Amino acid sequence: MKALEEKILAEGKVLPGNTLKVGSFLNHRLDVDFIMEMGREIARLFADCGVNKVLTVETSGIPIAFAAAYALHVPAVFAKKHKTANLEGEFYKTVVHSYTHDADYDVVVSREYLGAGDRVLIVDDFLANGKALEGLIDIVGQANAEVAGCSCAVEKGFQSGGDRLRSRGIRVESLAVIESFKDGRITFRNENVN
Amino acid sequence: MKALEEKILAEGKVLPGNTLKVGSFLNHRLDVDFIMEMGREIARLFADCGVNKVLTVETSGIPIAFAAAYALHVPAVFAKKHKTANLEGEFYKTVVHSYTHDADYDVVVSREYLGAGDRVLIVDDFLANGKALEGLIDIVGQANAEVAGCSCAVEKGFQSGGDRLRSRGIRVESLAVIESFKDGRITFRNENVN
Repeated sequence: MKALEEKILAEGKVLPGNTLKVGSFLNHRLDVDFIMEMGREIARLFADCGVNKVLTVETSGIPIAFAAAYALHVPAVFAKKHKTANLEGEFYKTVVHSYTHDADYDVVVSREYLGAGDRVLIVDDFLANGKALEGLIDIVGQANAEVAGCSCAVEKGFQSGGDRLRSRGIRVESLAVIESFKDGRITFRNENVN
Repeated sequence: MKALEEKILAEGKVLPGNTLKVGSFLNHRLDVDFIMEMGREIARLFADCGVNKVLTVETSGIPIAFAAAYALHVPAVFAKKHKTANLEGEFYKTVVHSYTHDADYDVVVSREYLGAGDRVLIVDDFLANGKALEGLIDIVGQANAEVAGCSCAVEKGFQSGGDRLRSRGIRVESLAVIESFKDGRITFRNENVN
């Protein structure tokens, strides 16, 4: 998505450790109109896939998942990172490793909100090592639901997550794929090559 | 907002401890179209207030804040509960007590995304004791920005938070105000009485 690549070049900052900061529009300050545009693009890519639910994981996946769900006219579900007092009853549960925080955490989804017959589009803001998406795919499997595909705003193509998912036969559509951060310059993988 | 009261009566569950569970549409599964409708109602209520930014705190405030910001055509900012590796530089910071988790946590907003001249509408999903909103008001004050008002989806009117804020002269518009949960029956405060 050319507009996203341009936005990343204009507003993104590369921090030490190949961290891309896009807090100005994607995950701290939210450029709501632009996120809605990304949601429409995701909906276009998965228009004929029978998606009836969007799944993400808190926190920063929520805005783009919400926008994609709005454009697809389906509900969104966000997985929670901890069992809280507001979650009663039974859950699907998986463990995800966060490299950012160097810790494992539980990810849970209520059994009420995901089940057999659901055809799920998994959406997140970032795709790097793919651990969060793999956790959500595991949860969809536990629910006997189907994964229609995965879509992320920004994929770090030089990490293994996206391509490992694709090699499993899962359709992964990232709106921008960063090939490298060499010498502080951001290079994108050719658009529409997935 | 009559439609929200009806939705709460149809789908909400009162759990022990006067916890209202609305995970079916507001904070686990997201009824995106309905949340957008709530966002439009918030935008209508604050249409002439010069709002140029919506502020919320992660996690469950994000969808309704996003929807309100979309309807107001302004960006949203969500405060983060911990300083993370993706947040560089300087922050406004406050401490909020969570009764749900019986713990204090830091709430931070980057100084890049809030400042003097901003006129801020604070949005959240729930208003009970008001601690989260007070924390956000504190952050707006640190930024030398102005609070245009606060708007929440569901206020527990039998707790003190909303009325304490109103007594400080802050405009608080809750889309549904629960007066009591007596005998498992939900009673609402009269609409449009704030």
